[in-house]
Amino acid sequence: MFNSMLNQLTGSDAFELPSGYRAIGMHAGIKKDGVKDMALFVSDHPAEMAGTYTTNRFRAAPVELCIRHLNSGMPARAIVVNSGVANAATGTRGQDDARDMAERTAQLTGIETEQVYVCSTGVIGRYLPMDTVRQGIERMVSQLAADGGTTASEAILTTDTRPKRWSVEFNVDGYQAKLAGCAKGAGMIQPDMATMLAFLFTDAAVNGEALRNALRLAVADSFNRITVDGDTSTNDTTLMMANGCAGNKPLHPGHKDWDAFTAALEEVTKQLAWKIIEDGEGAEKVICIQVRGATSDADAERVARTIANSFLVKTGWSGKGPAWGRVLDCIGYSGADVDPAQTDVYYNDLPAVTGGISGAAAPEALASAVKNNFRLMVDLHRGQCQATVYTCNITEEYVRINL
Amino acid sequence: MFNSMLNQLTGSDAFELPSGYRAIGMHAGIKKDGVKDMALFVSDHPAEMAGTYTTNRFRAAPVELCIRHLNSGMPARAIVVNSGVANAATGTRGQDDARDMAERTAQLTGIETEQVYVCSTGVIGRYLPMDTVRQGIERMVSQLAADGGTTASEAILTTDTRPKRWSVEFNVDGYQAKLAGCAKGAGMIQPDMATMLAFLFTDAAVNGEALRNALRLAVADSFNRITVDGDTSTNDTTLMMANGCAGNKPLHPGHKDWDAFTAALEEVTKQLAWKIIEDGEGAEKVICIQVRGATSDADAERVARTIANSFLVKTGWSGKGPAWGRVLDCIGYSGADVDPAQTDVYYNDLPAVTGGISGAAAPEALASAVKNNFRLMVDLHRGQCQATVYTCNITEEYVRINL
Repeated sequence: MFNSMLNQLTGSDAFELPSGYRAIGMHAGIKKDGVKDMALFVSDHPAEMAGTYTTNRFRAAPVELCIRHLNSGMPARAIVVNSGVANAATGTRGQDDARDMAERTAQLTGIETEQVYVCSTGVIGRYLPMDTVRQGIERMVSQLAADGGTTASEAILTTDTRPKRWSVEFNVDGYQAKLAGCAKGAGMIQPDMATMLAFLFTDAAVNGEALRNALRLAVADSFNRITVDGDTSTNDTTLMMANGCAGNKPLHPGHKDWDAFTAALEEVTKQLAWKIIEDGEGAEKVICIQVRGATSDADAERVARTIANSFLVKTGWSGKGPAWGRVLDCIGYSGADVDPAQTDVYYNDLPAVTGGISGAAAPEALASAVKNNFRLMVDLHRGQCQATVYTCNITEEYVRINL
Repeated sequence: MFNSMLNQLTGSDAFELPSGYRAIGMHAGIKKDGVKDMALFVSDHPAEMAGTYTTNRFRAAPVELCIRHLNSGMPARAIVVNSGVANAATGTRGQDDARDMAERTAQLTGIETEQVYVCSTGVIGRYLPMDTVRQGIERMVSQLAADGGTTASEAILTTDTRPKRWSVEFNVDGYQAKLAGCAKGAGMIQPDMATMLAFLFTDAAVNGEALRNALRLAVADSFNRITVDGDTSTNDTTLMMANGCAGNKPLHPGHKDWDAFTAALEEVTKQLAWKIIEDGEGAEKVICIQVRGATSDADAERVARTIANSFLVKTGWSGKGPAWGRVLDCIGYSGADVDPAQTDVYYNDLPAVTGGISGAAAPEALASAVKNNFRLMVDLHRGQCQATVYTCNITEEYVRINL
């Protein structure tokens, strides 16, 4: 029915760094058994930076640091990441540790502390083993390489079963530019393990304010459209660097190639979002929930998210049936302006519910539709507004992972 | 730590009907294998009636009927119930079927249709097998008995593993009166099976308006304090009859024995609510979530319900750990006015989190606390408001039941 959030893809399932970037991922010793647990990304030239962060009131120490460093207005140079420990709910000691990671990276690479961004993901409420982290930074700095994106994209993972990567090329001012990203995330938060993280890099030159606006819009339409379990982590962060090494004049919304850049950004963020939901903890299939005919965008989103976060519905989709009774139930308690007698529900194009009661679709056809990825469409017939959210089914495996 | 929502109990784990009531539960043929699927409760004398209903916009046909009949102002005489089919999302045909159940019961017992109340619970979106239902009503009317409460309390169940019953005696005007109730509910909604239902009967005379206010308050403090999965069914209904057969003058808030009546009502509703949460689908333990120090009652409830409805938290409580990182995460995204640095979290009386970071309690002690029923206390230190909600843990069994 659909393989991604996009109709046409131009990029590839890789994470080849654009020009002017180097990276590395390795096992520093935070995790056991030699599993990679630290990554470092460095731009050899000062880069514009953009970031979006969790809305959780309990923001982890590294998130606070990223916000401060972005507000400093200094060009960015590096992102240092660890997995295994989230450095969340760690108080002033956690803040000191996050700053220490930035300072150490800055000293060893000859840049300013405010030019370094820090991300952590893992167990909440535990302190970072700073000796291990410091040694890890030292070793990473000495091993940075232009082809280090692959190991870096592995080192940021927690309960993910596979890395998430996507790269797109585009033309700007006659120069070939690249936009590459990697992400992690499997539950919105995991075995007390937090977080969705995404890191995007382009060698195009982009005006800083324009970059930040473009990232905000792209994230709203990709990472903010997916939900595994409705839990918003303390550490969620998306960071994007633009270092200008492609040679173009800085992009901005009036530039003739602005649309090529935003199309590339949209493709990378949507592809990474798709890969996260596809790798949802215990998930077997992706469900695209479209709500239309709402009296407001907020109402459309309310209905879509109520369905997408109902464990009862999503457990049902792991069984044999379409569970449209449970879907109606969600619509009814969503708080949105709905009228049962006007409500239609389709699975792919099959009418399961028409005017609030059983529609013409055969039960066997509906059961067949929910066996794989499918599109659930709710038409409220109340207005002109709509919303789309992506989610996955819930299996016993989700419970086992999170015990 | 605690065995119920009350400190002192005066009643018993039974469902002996007060004077003037008869009932019966039996297998009519809606369910397979001889499982009881219909119940009938009759008061031989006209009774005052009170009801509370689901807030879901997709209310099932029988719920609409109950609301109409209560608004008619006629004294109540009977409640007819079926399990197995919810008669929800069934349109005008479902409305006709619900009315047919009331009419049939009225004809056979010689009362008015508006004096009969109807409740259904089971699969959403399926029509009632009305021939079976009509024959069932006929057989039930001929078998009504003063000791029929036990079979009736069994016939209203769906995925419940056991019936829920409680009875209390109290004195009013020197007369001995009784208040007895039964309930069903295991998920808020189940294998497309809906619903929490509760039926309460007293032989005390109670002023109608006073009865309805008392029930509303009692339900707000019992059935509305529990959540298994956060899904609000299409059929949730609590009905209460007061037939005056005890002989007292009608009770009202100015009556000297009003408090004895409301205490009995509180005990029965809280005991039934406790039994529902204890029998939550796949649940092993009950967790009492208390939030205090909030700036408003709404904020306190927001925090309590966000924790109580997080499958990630409740799955964690099935494992070995207290999952306080996930609890903090919920507090942070609840939308309430909170300050991480002021937030304390206790398990029973153990300080797990103090000022937003790990508290003095030993991990082993916390792990031990969550092995059985426990109390989670969150102190936001922001104001004077509080809220309490009861929930259960989530296991793989919940997923298996709802596949």
